[in-house]
Amino acid sequence: MELLIGPRTYSTWSLRGWLVMKATGADFAVRDARYDTPEAKAALLAVSPSGFVPALTVDGELIWDTLAIAEWAAEHYPQAGLWPADPVARALARSVTAEMHSGFSALRTFCGMGPDHPIFGDARAETPSDPALDRDLARIVALLRQMRNRFGDDGPWLFGARSIADIFYTPVAARIRHYQIDLSGHGDDGVAQTYVEALLAHPDFRQWEMEAAQL
Amino acid sequence: MELLIGPRTYSTWSLRGWLVMKATGADFAVRDARYDTPEAKAALLAVSPSGFVPALTVDGELIWDTLAIAEWAAEHYPQAGLWPADPVARALARSVTAEMHSGFSALRTFCGMGPDHPIFGDARAETPSDPALDRDLARIVALLRQMRNRFGDDGPWLFGARSIADIFYTPVAARIRHYQIDLSGHGDDGVAQTYVEALLAHPDFRQWEMEAAQL
Repeated sequence: MELLIGPRTYSTWSLRGWLVMKATGADFAVRDARYDTPEAKAALLAVSPSGFVPALTVDGELIWDTLAIAEWAAEHYPQAGLWPADPVARALARSVTAEMHSGFSALRTFCGMGPDHPIFGDARAETPSDPALDRDLARIVALLRQMRNRFGDDGPWLFGARSIADIFYTPVAARIRHYQIDLSGHGDDGVAQTYVEALLAHPDFRQWEMEAAQL
Repeated sequence: MELLIGPRTYSTWSLRGWLVMKATGADFAVRDARYDTPEAKAALLAVSPSGFVPALTVDGELIWDTLAIAEWAAEHYPQAGLWPADPVARALARSVTAEMHSGFSALRTFCGMGPDHPIFGDARAETPSDPALDRDLARIVALLRQMRNRFGDDGPWLFGARSIADIFYTPVAARIRHYQIDLSGHGDDGVAQTYVEALLAHPDFRQWEMEAAQL
C-alpha cells in the first residue's frame, strides 16, 4: 500500500490523504511526487493520470482522489471510526467534508499555500482582504461553531471522535494560522479558534510539520 | 423527505441530486429554489446556509452537498445498488465521482449551463476552444473509455449496474451535447460517445428534461 503525495511543504490535499491513512493505523509507504516542472508533471501523469495527489495504490489499483481514499479507508478500517457511527452525524460530517472538497475557492485563492507559504512552521504572511474571502471565512466559522456546539461535548472535534471531517479542515487551520486570520472578525466567539488550535496540535499534524521542515 | 433544487433548466448539481434520489426508488418531495436575484439568494441561504443546491431534508436534518446526499442515499437504500458491490469497482467509482465533484473547472467555465444554455432540449451552442478545455475533455474521454473497456460487459454503464458515477457524469453529457463537442477530436474511438448517448437516453434524465421544458 503506497500513498503518492506532493510536496509536504504546501500540498494541502496530500496532507489530508496522509492524515486519513495515518488515522487508519495501517502501515503504508509514502512516495513523493513533484509537479513544479513540466517534466515532473509528466512523470506524475504517468503514475496518476488525473494529475491528482494524493493517490493511493492498493493491490495494484489506483484510488486517486482524497475523498475516494477517505471513503475507501473508512470502509476498510471500520475499527478506526473515520466517520461518526451515528447516521445523522455521519451525513452532516460528509456534508461538511464535501463542502470543503469542492468549495471555499476564495480561501484557496487568497490564502494559497506554496513554497513561500508553507503549511508548517513559524512563517507568517500578511492577512489578505477580499469580500469573497470574507464570505468563505464567515461560512467556515458558522459551520465549525454549529457542529462544535451540537456535538462538542465529547472532546475537541467536530462530531465526537476525530473523523475525516476534522482531517479535511486541518489544512484550513494551517491557512488561518499562516495568514494570521482573526476569526473573531468573522463571527467567531472563540469556539472556532479553539477548534483550529486543536487541529494544529494533533500529533499526526505535528509529525507532518516535522517531516516537512526536515526536507 | 424533501429535495431542494435550483432551476431545472441549468442547475447541473440539482440534476445530479435529483437523479440520485430517483435511483433510490423512494418517494421524495421537490422544492424549487432560485438564486438569480439577491432576494432569492438570501431566501436560499436561510434554508441552506452553504448556499448549495441540491440539499436534502430528512427528519428535519439538512444534508447539503450532492456527494453527501449520494453517500447517504447509498447507505440508506442498499437495495438500489448506488455504488458497485465490488470493492475495487466501488473505489474506482468513487474516484471518478470525486474527480468530477471537485474538478473539470475548464469544462464548467467554457461549457457553462444557464438560462441561454439549457440542460434540456434542442438548443445548441458554438463549440468553445481552449487548451484547458481540451485537457479536461481528453481526461474525461480517457476516463470513460478506460472504465467502459474494463467493466462495460454488463450493460451500457461505467461499472456494470448504473451507479452514482453515471449520475455524476450525466450533466457532463448534457454539456457535450449542447456545446456540440466532437469527442473523436479528444481521443475517443466511439466508446465515450456511445456512453454519453446512453446517459442522455436514460428515462430519469428524459423525465428531468421534460419537466424542465414545461417550466
